[in-house]
Amino acid sequence: MTEIAPVEQRRAGRPRSEDADRAIIEATLDLLADYGIAGTTIEGIAARAGVGKTTIYRRWKGLESLICDAVAELKGPLPALPGTSIRDDMLVLFEAAARSRESARNRKVYACFIGEMTRYPALDAQYRESVIKPRRALTQTALQRAVERGELRDDLDLDVMAEIVTAPTLHWMLHNPDRSPTREQLEQFLDGVLHGVAKR
Amino acid sequence: MTEIAPVEQRRAGRPRSEDADRAIIEATLDLLADYGIAGTTIEGIAARAGVGKTTIYRRWKGLESLICDAVAELKGPLPALPGTSIRDDMLVLFEAAARSRESARNRKVYACFIGEMTRYPALDAQYRESVIKPRRALTQTALQRAVERGELRDDLDLDVMAEIVTAPTLHWMLHNPDRSPTREQLEQFLDGVLHGVAKR
Repeated sequence: MTEIAPVEQRRAGRPRSEDADRAIIEATLDLLADYGIAGTTIEGIAARAGVGKTTIYRRWKGLESLICDAVAELKGPLPALPGTSIRDDMLVLFEAAARSRESARNRKVYACFIGEMTRYPALDAQYRESVIKPRRALTQTALQRAVERGELRDDLDLDVMAEIVTAPTLHWMLHNPDRSPTREQLEQFLDGVLHGVAKR
Repeated sequence: MTEIAPVEQRRAGRPRSEDADRAIIEATLDLLADYGIAGTTIEGIAARAGVGKTTIYRRWKGLESLICDAVAELKGPLPALPGTSIRDDMLVLFEAAARSRESARNRKVYACFIGEMTRYPALDAQYRESVIKPRRALTQTALQRAVERGELRDDLDLDVMAEIVTAPTLHWMLHNPDRSPTREQLEQFLDGVLHGVAKR
């Protein structure tokens, strides 16, 4: 036996800074998927991540901030929009949304948020502000630019338009937690809302 | 003291058959709203409804059937569609959906279903079969008739079209559990998907 443990053995102990952050985020998402918001605690996250509670409190103000960061991580960075057409822009956004739901775990996290948010108003407010708002703003920017290019109608409220354009994809994903949408489905939903389902 | 208690006092005791059914359904919805599927048990429902567990088991095969019936009750009977136009038909369906979400309690019940269904596959299957399927069939019938009347495009898959037409309203309601949609919003969503958001 030597005093210097092999790398694998050291790794199995307390993870270091970046590894610890990653482990904490993953543990948070795992617990949300398995037990919902109600069953996710700092104690549980610390135990699952293999870190002390103080490590968590050094990085995050509390459970709400940590949960918001974990879900933001799950969503990934805001994608860069090509800006070539509203169809191109929206397909990039939809594919990013679909990618972040590729694993069953991640789909469960999204579902638990919808289900439990009404019981956690402070978390709900923080989530809407830090996670939803920047993403909604990106969609609105894409729509606004398309209105200015003359691609989209200029007589619709942007909030209403954003809801119409994104809802079929988001709603379908929420109600089909066992599979991912195909590229063809994303295109069908998008073309349907762009051109309408009424006969011309 | 007389042997015959005043009506109010009798009412406060064990409710009779129809009253009992109603009390059981309401207790089920109350518990779902407050504690989710995970916190809803036959024992809890019996206690809240003021009936014995055997009264519940005489009427329902088990918790899953009771929960499905409670949510079907909350949704109300399938509405009669005027059949005059797809716009008229869909507004009747949307207003029924909005009505069933008028109380905060009911909106919480819907939200908890989305959030927890992935953890209860047997309940999920029964709910889709007994509650979702007949309602989806009604929407499909309305769309199919509108295609036949020449109101709607005939080159779209009916499932895709149903998703496009209903998603903005349903998705908006799910993400705004603190308020009801106005008639104007329902019309904006519907006209948006019928005529499309692209400039012609």
